[in-house]
Amino acid sequence: MPETALETVAIAGVGLIGGSFALALRQAGFRGAILGVSSPRTIARALELRVIDEGVALEEACSRADLVYLAGPIHSILETIPRLDALLRPGALVTDAGSTKSLICQAGARLSRAQFLGGHPMAGKELRGVESAEAGLFHGRPYLLTPRRPEDLDTPAAVEFVEWVRRIGAVPKILAPEQHDQVVALSSHLPQLLSTALASGLGRQDCGADVAAAAGPGLLDSTRLALSAWDIWRDILDTNQEAILAAMDLFADRWKELRETMAHGVLEEDFRQGRAFAEMLRAQRSNNGDTSR
Amino acid sequence: MPETALETVAIAGVGLIGGSFALALRQAGFRGAILGVSSPRTIARALELRVIDEGVALEEACSRADLVYLAGPIHSILETIPRLDALLRPGALVTDAGSTKSLICQAGARLSRAQFLGGHPMAGKELRGVESAEAGLFHGRPYLLTPRRPEDLDTPAAVEFVEWVRRIGAVPKILAPEQHDQVVALSSHLPQLLSTALASGLGRQDCGADVAAAAGPGLLDSTRLALSAWDIWRDILDTNQEAILAAMDLFADRWKELRETMAHGVLEEDFRQGRAFAEMLRAQRSNNGDTSR
Repeated sequence: MPETALETVAIAGVGLIGGSFALALRQAGFRGAILGVSSPRTIARALELRVIDEGVALEEACSRADLVYLAGPIHSILETIPRLDALLRPGALVTDAGSTKSLICQAGARLSRAQFLGGHPMAGKELRGVESAEAGLFHGRPYLLTPRRPEDLDTPAAVEFVEWVRRIGAVPKILAPEQHDQVVALSSHLPQLLSTALASGLGRQDCGADVAAAAGPGLLDSTRLALSAWDIWRDILDTNQEAILAAMDLFADRWKELRETMAHGVLEEDFRQGRAFAEMLRAQRSNNGDTSR
Repeated sequence: MPETALETVAIAGVGLIGGSFALALRQAGFRGAILGVSSPRTIARALELRVIDEGVALEEACSRADLVYLAGPIHSILETIPRLDALLRPGALVTDAGSTKSLICQAGARLSRAQFLGGHPMAGKELRGVESAEAGLFHGRPYLLTPRRPEDLDTPAAVEFVEWVRRIGAVPKILAPEQHDQVVALSSHLPQLLSTALASGLGRQDCGADVAAAAGPGLLDSTRLALSAWDIWRDILDTNQEAILAAMDLFADRWKELRETMAHGVLEEDFRQGRAFAEMLRAQRSNNGDTSR
């Protein structure tokens, strides 16, 4: 562990992710101050639940914090970054937890008084809000870090932040912002759209009620993502259109191939390949120490 | 409860489903004999685990049973049915637990000495074999019954069987065999193929390792079905090709629409429809009293 320079952290957006990051830092031994920037109602709840030490305005948060953690929705992160430059302490580190990275990291690169390092913790759950925050949320989960240049990770502030990411039990992975957006288009946005396509398509069928009546555990798994909130996905789809369209086209090609094999051949090799990838995912997860469902 | 005529049940194929049906019957108060027809190794395990009372050959099972429950793989059910006619007690009921119903019910209709009533319990889990059998497997789960004619449900043997299906906690649903196969093509076979297509497609990507490293809970849900065993799916795909191809084409159309909207519009309405269907499924499940994951 490097000498600790991190004394004050400001969390902008004290919801599930921001609140969990605050709790995780504390549990991992962080002894400095944790400031929260959120609506008055959220701040009151966060203080009550001892998630943050103090609720302050963005201006005050920036004037005091060594680390500013932007955990709101993507559009709010994009609106907030340009306002920070006049407010930040020189040498501060700004990071975020937004689900897409190219546009956010472009905005971050325009900061002159502080360093920006994009992040994306691959954690979440069905419930939202500070009430659902938990110190263990990041445990065993990948934490994607998206420096625009590899040397962005070498500054003292970045080195210390990455060390805290490890200390909260997450597994840091480095990807360039554009590479990140292509990877999550496949790993996250494509599965979301498949679930939405399946569930919305089945709902339109005349026999939709019979389909629901006959649902087994597989259909429940396949439609879990379809429950996701639109307000989060609107921002994701808006800020990663190109990579998502490419992922959708890739799936359309795979589906066409599978249909041909279903009509004229045997799907054994496709099942084998699918199973191999699904097993590889699970091995990776268990290597990370992720013991959740 | 009608006067009980059911004294002896024979389970052909004492695996997860057959074994669980035996345990569930017993737990629901069935006091008659439960015979098992399986490989010597499985019979030994089933006796040890007190899943069945006695292991016998198919011939003896048929000469003694009032209810013959075919719980093997689809191809074995299809091979077994024609052999039963010479062996069954007059008035016996033959049922099965195969995942597709048109071909099986056609074969069943050719029995002359006994009645056939197709069935399909919508239950299962990742583990297979009699060691994984449990009395609660069917609790709160749909149990699809597929009479070729509605009056097939009115015979005393059928009335009593349906009563036992209820007693083991399952929720009987009536569908004609062809209707069943169309419904499960959408509710079960389509989700399976989507999961296999997704996982096999991602595995082929150059960035497949990054995708795996970045996997969150959504990708784990979406690839769970891709772990399914090919030997079970080979039979399902072989015996429901037409309905599966229709379901695949339906999905391809939905995907194309979604892609167009992604490129030129807003997906809010698709998300709303998907969520509504996913919520409806869950409401249905909780109405059934299913409290599993």
